[in-house]
Amino acid sequence: MRVVLAPDSFRGSLDAPAACDALAAGVASARPDAVVTAVPMADGGEGTLDRLLSAWGGREVVRTVPGPLGHPVAARYGLARGGTTAVVELAAASGLTALGQEPPDPLRASTRGTGELVLDAVSRGAREVVVCLGGSASTDGGGGLLAALGFRLLDDRGRVLPDGGEALRRVAAVDASSVPDAVRRTTFRVACDVTNPLVGPQGAAAVFASQKGATPEDVAVLEAAMCRWAEVLAGATAASGAPGRGDVAAAPGAGAAGGTAAGLVALLGAVTVPGAALVAGAVGLAGALAGADLVLTGEGRLDEQTADGKVVSAVSRLAREAGVPVVAVAGGVGRPLPSLHAAGLTAAFSLADGPRTLGDMVAAAPELLAAVAEQVVRLYGRGAAA
Amino acid sequence: MRVVLAPDSFRGSLDAPAACDALAAGVASARPDAVVTAVPMADGGEGTLDRLLSAWGGREVVRTVPGPLGHPVAARYGLARGGTTAVVELAAASGLTALGQEPPDPLRASTRGTGELVLDAVSRGAREVVVCLGGSASTDGGGGLLAALGFRLLDDRGRVLPDGGEALRRVAAVDASSVPDAVRRTTFRVACDVTNPLVGPQGAAAVFASQKGATPEDVAVLEAAMCRWAEVLAGATAASGAPGRGDVAAAPGAGAAGGTAAGLVALLGAVTVPGAALVAGAVGLAGALAGADLVLTGEGRLDEQTADGKVVSAVSRLAREAGVPVVAVAGGVGRPLPSLHAAGLTAAFSLADGPRTLGDMVAAAPELLAAVAEQVVRLYGRGAAA
Repeated sequence: MRVVLAPDSFRGSLDAPAACDALAAGVASARPDAVVTAVPMADGGEGTLDRLLSAWGGREVVRTVPGPLGHPVAARYGLARGGTTAVVELAAASGLTALGQEPPDPLRASTRGTGELVLDAVSRGAREVVVCLGGSASTDGGGGLLAALGFRLLDDRGRVLPDGGEALRRVAAVDASSVPDAVRRTTFRVACDVTNPLVGPQGAAAVFASQKGATPEDVAVLEAAMCRWAEVLAGATAASGAPGRGDVAAAPGAGAAGGTAAGLVALLGAVTVPGAALVAGAVGLAGALAGADLVLTGEGRLDEQTADGKVVSAVSRLAREAGVPVVAVAGGVGRPLPSLHAAGLTAAFSLADGPRTLGDMVAAAPELLAAVAEQVVRLYGRGAAA
Repeated sequence: MRVVLAPDSFRGSLDAPAACDALAAGVASARPDAVVTAVPMADGGEGTLDRLLSAWGGREVVRTVPGPLGHPVAARYGLARGGTTAVVELAAASGLTALGQEPPDPLRASTRGTGELVLDAVSRGAREVVVCLGGSASTDGGGGLLAALGFRLLDDRGRVLPDGGEALRRVAAVDASSVPDAVRRTTFRVACDVTNPLVGPQGAAAVFASQKGATPEDVAVLEAAMCRWAEVLAGATAASGAPGRGDVAAAPGAGAAGGTAAGLVALLGAVTVPGAALVAGAVGLAGALAGADLVLTGEGRLDEQTADGKVVSAVSRLAREAGVPVVAVAGGVGRPLPSLHAAGLTAAFSLADGPRTLGDMVAAAPELLAAVAEQVVRLYGRGAAA
C-alpha cells in the first residue's frame, strides 16, 4: 500500500513536516507495511519559503528593512536555484506579525520593506522573484513595494506621496523612469490564496482591512484609495500597451495582500498563481501521486471558503487527475463541502475526538492527527473500489 | 451498496431510531442508491424495552410500585410474545432516575419495586422474564427484588431484614418457603453490560456505589454487606444442590446493578447474557448483516471501557463473523482501541467537527452524525478491499 502525505501546516499547531510525521505515525499503526511518501505542502502563506527552498535548494538571506509602519525589522527571504530565483514572503517584512508590539495602523501601513527585500534579491542577481502574499498589515495596493523598486507615486501636482493606503486617495500618476533596468528585466510571480478583486464589496478594503485594524471609516477611506489606485494602474498599463492587464481592479486575486497583487501585475507584469499549485509544482506532488493508493492531506480548518489556492483543493485536483482517493483531516471541518468534493476530495474528517476546546485540540494535535489517520487507513483497507 | 445501521442510543442526545435516521441521511447524501437497513440497538440499558417489544411484539404495562426509597413510582414493563415473555428494565422502578426529587440514599435504596413488576408479570402469565440491569440506585444485591417475590431475608435471630444494602451486613439466611410456585417455574434471563464481580476492588460497591451517592464510608459498609450476602447466597445455592452457582461472588457480571445479578442467579437460576447480544438476537441483526457491504454503529462514547455487553462490541463481533466492515461513530472516541479493533471494529470516528462543547455537540448531533456517515460512505466507496 502506497500512501502520500501532503498536508498544509495546521496554523498555530503543527508545521507541515510535523503534520506529515503525525500522519505517518497513524498510517504505520494501521498498516506497518505501507510505503509512505511525505510531501509537506503550503499555500503561499506560512511555510511557503521553507517548502520552496527545500524543493529548489537554496539559502536564506536576512535583511533589516522597514516594517509595516517604518520601524526596522529583520526579515528573511530565500535565494534558490543558484541564486537565480528569489522567494520573498510578504509577511516577513510587511505582515501583521512584523508589527511586533506596535498597534496596527491600516491607513499608513506599507509594503515598502518587502520591496527592499525584492531589490536586494535583484541586486544579488536574482532573475525571477516569487512574491508570496498573505498575512499583510497593509492596504496600500503594493505602493510601498513599488516605491522601493524605484516607481514614483505622484499626486496631481507631481509630488511624491507618502507611504500607506490612505495617501493613494491622492495618487494621480506613476513615474517609472527611475526604475532600474535590473528590476525591469526581472520576472515576477505572485503566489496568493485568495481570488478577491482589488475594489468593491469583495475587494481588498471591504473584506480584509478590518482584520488589519481598520474601523468602518478606515475601510471607506481605503476603498476610495483603492478605486483611485485602480484608475491610475489602468491608465499606466494602457499607456504601456501591455495586453490583458487592463481590468486590474476586477481581476481575481488582485485584492490579495491589501491590493499588492494589483500593483505587481499592473506595473511589473507579474503573473499570479495559486500558492498551493505553485508549491505542488515545486515539490513534485504530481509525480509522487503516480501509482499511489491513497493521499492524506489536511489543514487547520476546512470549509467551502477553502478557495482554489488552498492546499486541500490543489491536492484534491491533482489526486483526481491521478485517480487516487484523497482524504483530508482538519482541526475543524465545515459541512457540507460540495465544491471540495467536486474538486476531487473523497472525504474529510475532523481530528477532534469528542468535546474539546480549541486550545486543547492544538495541544493534542499530533496524537489526534495520528489517530484519525489510523482510522482512515483502516477503513480504506476494508473499502470496496467503486 | 447495502448498508446496515445498528447504533445504540446516544445518551442524552438521540435514541437509537433517531440515530438511524441521522445515519441514513448521511448514507443517502453519499450514495442515493444505497439500500439501507435500520436495526436500532440497545445494550440492556436505556431503550432495551422498546427494542425488544418492537422485535417480539407486545404491549406495555404500567404499575405503581415502590421506588428505590419506597415512595410510589409509576413504572412500565413489557409483555411480549403473547404475554409469555416479560421485559423488565430495573431502572424503571429502581433506577437513579426513579428517585425523582429525592436525594440518593445508597445504604437504604432497594430493588423491591422491580420485584413487584416481576411478580405482576408472573401473575399475568409470563413464563419467562428478562430483567434488564443498569442505572440502579441501589446496592442491595437484588435483596429487595427477591423479597418482593417471596424470599425472606433473615438475620441470625430469624427476623426479617429491612430493605436496602446496609441491612445485608446482618443477613444470615434466606427462607424460600413462601416463594410462589409460579415464580419458581419462571425462567429468568438477566441482561447486563458489565462484567464486574459482586465483591472486591472491581465489585458492585467499590466501582459503582459512589455513582449512587455513596461516601467512602458508605462504600465500606456496602462492601461488607455484599461480602456477607455472597456467603449467604453461596450457602443457599450449595444447599439447593444446583450445579455451577457456587462462586456467586466472583462470577463475571454478578456485580451488575448493585449486585442484583448475583441474587437472581443464585436464588432464581437466572442466566446472565450480555445486553447487546440479547438485543442483537431479538432484532435479528445477524440476518440483516448477511450480504451487507458495510455496517455503521455508534454510541455516545466509545473507549476501551466499552465492555463486551456494549452495542459497538456486539455489532463488531457479528460483523466480523459475517465478513462485513463495521465503522463506529461516537460522540467521543477514546484511543487507541486495540480490543475493539480485535473484536472486529474496522474504524471509529468522532462526530465532532472541530472544537465544540458537549452541549453544543448534543444539540447538533443529528447533523453531525449524518455528516460523518456521509464521509465514511464516501471513503468506503473509494477504498481497496484488503
